[in-house]
Amino acid sequence: MSLIEDLNWRYATKKMNGAVVPQDKLDYILEAARLAPSSSGLQPYRIIVVSDKEVLEKIKAIAFDQSQIVDCSHLLVFAAWDGYTYEKIGEVFKRTTQERGLPDDAMSAYHDRLWSMYEPLGQQWHFNHAAKQAYIALGTAVAAAAEQRVDATPMEGFIPEKLDEILGLAEKGLKSAAILPLGYRDEANDWLVNQKKVRTPKEEFIIEVK
Amino acid sequence: MSLIEDLNWRYATKKMNGAVVPQDKLDYILEAARLAPSSSGLQPYRIIVVSDKEVLEKIKAIAFDQSQIVDCSHLLVFAAWDGYTYEKIGEVFKRTTQERGLPDDAMSAYHDRLWSMYEPLGQQWHFNHAAKQAYIALGTAVAAAAEQRVDATPMEGFIPEKLDEILGLAEKGLKSAAILPLGYRDEANDWLVNQKKVRTPKEEFIIEVK
Repeated sequence: MSLIEDLNWRYATKKMNGAVVPQDKLDYILEAARLAPSSSGLQPYRIIVVSDKEVLEKIKAIAFDQSQIVDCSHLLVFAAWDGYTYEKIGEVFKRTTQERGLPDDAMSAYHDRLWSMYEPLGQQWHFNHAAKQAYIALGTAVAAAAEQRVDATPMEGFIPEKLDEILGLAEKGLKSAAILPLGYRDEANDWLVNQKKVRTPKEEFIIEVK
Repeated sequence: MSLIEDLNWRYATKKMNGAVVPQDKLDYILEAARLAPSSSGLQPYRIIVVSDKEVLEKIKAIAFDQSQIVDCSHLLVFAAWDGYTYEKIGEVFKRTTQERGLPDDAMSAYHDRLWSMYEPLGQQWHFNHAAKQAYIALGTAVAAAAEQRVDATPMEGFIPEKLDEILGLAEKGLKSAAILPLGYRDEANDWLVNQKKVRTPKEEFIIEVK
């Protein structure tokens, strides 16, 4: 199967049937997300995997009562760093130079230059920037799930501050950006399953400058 | 091949060799991006495909002189809506209901509810939100390119206002968010090609709530 076939197979599943996604498929989806590219390779986000039913019920209550949150197998929460610091960036670059067997200071000049750009932009900009990187990983997880024939519904319909509270994200320096229930479609009860996939027409979506 | 194999094959190509990506592969990558999910299905972004060498030279000059911009085959510019309006959202929902053969007013209540949330958030929030959606498509394009064994380097290192000017994006209600040169690695001259891919370790990247 090809990625395009996978993307055509998937849809924003509205009703899931509660079936469990096998561990190997879950691991595959998470690994694909972990391999997603990010700006300067910082990966300024984490994925929280929630399968505890009580926690899922609490999340559903602050997410417009959307049923997928409790009928899914696992809920992935994409949470971005609440801000960049010189030290946090330095830790990532230190790992990079170490794993590549490069001198400790191989990324120092880049580190300083990056920080001189990021620092004045402030924490709200930092979080927005980090959240955008998380969305690359979100898109990658959606593609991976589709490839594994696991349904996945990217969602922003929740109260981020409440979700951060439920998961204790502030202590981790994280803020929730998007959630992705993974599970299996309940074909008999999902109004969207047989609706046509609608996208912006190619002629409108693509603008050519030749 | 699987998505994970594709993601492990790819890397942020630093030096491209100028070879041309065949039209069918370019079309494939663009179609995958077009199929990417987005919040409420709005797809609040467009992809500008630049292959004109003069335009690429101009872009390189406002993008820290990064060589991939002129050594690529095609440069994809992911540009997000500069803001939401009731009308723009309405046009997308109109197409959705029409293509699905639903009554004209099938999405009216949702349209009004969405706008009552979005309107007070203001244009800067709108653009940030739209740009995040564009990053889902960016991640999808990266995955599609890798599947087609086309190199692709997601980049934010450019002056967005200048790029908007070069491409006349303001008149289109768009602002540039990220760029993605597509092409082929110049293995002999790319310092990154043989470096280890470094990612946040799984134990740190994934947080489980069981």
